[in-house]
Amino acid sequence: MAVAFVSARDPRISPFLAPRTPPGTVLAEGAWAHRHLLDVGANIETFLFCPELLGGPGSQLAQAASRHARSAYPVSARTFARVSRRTRGSGLASLVRLPVWRAGHGVIGGRAVHDGTVVLIADGIEYATNLGALIRVVDASGAQALLLTNRQARIEHPDVFTASRGTVLTTPLIDFGEPRTAAAWLVREGFVVRLALPGASRDFRDRPRGDRPTAFVVGSEGRGVSAQWRSVPHEAVSIPMYGRADSLNVAVAAGVLLFG
Amino acid sequence: MAVAFVSARDPRISPFLAPRTPPGTVLAEGAWAHRHLLDVGANIETFLFCPELLGGPGSQLAQAASRHARSAYPVSARTFARVSRRTRGSGLASLVRLPVWRAGHGVIGGRAVHDGTVVLIADGIEYATNLGALIRVVDASGAQALLLTNRQARIEHPDVFTASRGTVLTTPLIDFGEPRTAAAWLVREGFVVRLALPGASRDFRDRPRGDRPTAFVVGSEGRGVSAQWRSVPHEAVSIPMYGRADSLNVAVAAGVLLFG
Repeated sequence: MAVAFVSARDPRISPFLAPRTPPGTVLAEGAWAHRHLLDVGANIETFLFCPELLGGPGSQLAQAASRHARSAYPVSARTFARVSRRTRGSGLASLVRLPVWRAGHGVIGGRAVHDGTVVLIADGIEYATNLGALIRVVDASGAQALLLTNRQARIEHPDVFTASRGTVLTTPLIDFGEPRTAAAWLVREGFVVRLALPGASRDFRDRPRGDRPTAFVVGSEGRGVSAQWRSVPHEAVSIPMYGRADSLNVAVAAGVLLFG
Repeated sequence: MAVAFVSARDPRISPFLAPRTPPGTVLAEGAWAHRHLLDVGANIETFLFCPELLGGPGSQLAQAASRHARSAYPVSARTFARVSRRTRGSGLASLVRLPVWRAGHGVIGGRAVHDGTVVLIADGIEYATNLGALIRVVDASGAQALLLTNRQARIEHPDVFTASRGTVLTTPLIDFGEPRTAAAWLVREGFVVRLALPGASRDFRDRPRGDRPTAFVVGSEGRGVSAQWRSVPHEAVSIPMYGRADSLNVAVAAGVLLFG
């Protein structure tokens, strides 16, 4: 059967070819990603598949994704190579709408705030891979949400999807913009705010747990926690550094704090 | 004063221009890196500086690095742009010899093995940034060494230097090759071997500490701990996963285990 490919000049393909996908959408590529999209019932706006690149299992996945996606188009290997950010084309690429999460009164990311609630706040994050790794840590640790302030990395960067292992689609993620907006919400909801500050005298392991909702704040890769956060009432905690490095990678620090 | 630049065709510059620096050497760039090289007394084989790109503080740093390095050459901005892996040239680049560490009888990385010794073993690591982050975690946690088996990432990749925040120059790092070689050393030295395996019934926090030297084994990004390690006598430990992700980034997992 001859397949009518949709060409790279077709406006339905153009969002895949732009340097950045449209706001609120992320590019997901490959077999693992597509199994994950189907597992979590992701909102696939457009699914592209390249029959020439697909083997048997890939073809089955393409059929399932075609049924699930809002729209699905076959493309040539040449067009797929232009769409793909990878060196080896998998033949499967989707434009996926990211869910929108909210923080309200007594609720965050669709779940009630309670004394055992833990959230992570990442301030000034610069790199998409770190943002993705932070989301993955929040998911794995059972923390309720990742709040962002002074964000620099793009949430829609495809590396966020990859580094989060797809958990960007299921982990409550709220961009507060200014720290004071986030702080106002935290204070109103009765959170204790723990800033991760190198050199703070209190060890992160040395604290009560579960008597109040807790927000851990980790800073940017280059500059740590911003002055804006330091002016919010907080407890300063440190991860003891026994070697020559003055800090940990931000996702590693978040993992140590959240699993500690 | 006219400066006689060393040209990009000069054999003294060629190691900087090859796709890979010579075995046992790493490229370090920029002001932060050079302050660190001087701080730790690194073995700088060749130092290149570009007067056109240096401001006042950079020039002072260049003078100090020139005195410290085995050899130092001024280069033009054009040559520096070819040497640099960065988009903005700092005017400072060094080829640095990595230290060589050994594991012997009762000793690893120049320090005695004792009951409180902790080492991290990274099996099958694929990415330079993860290798660098692992080194930084070992340094920060006070673990004694990072042992590598089934290594795929290049230790000499410049991302290892950057992601380790330069601690690749001071953290004992031993590439054992085959897991059985590492296991033989660990058994002889009385180590308990703890493999991080998803789904293991024992929580990583639920264990004795300090009664025997301990080796934590973390697996590769794609495939986890290899079958070779699973056949070594070990305790399996898991980091509980409360969300949808089936694993953590390998450096995050190492941080959680070593600081836990």
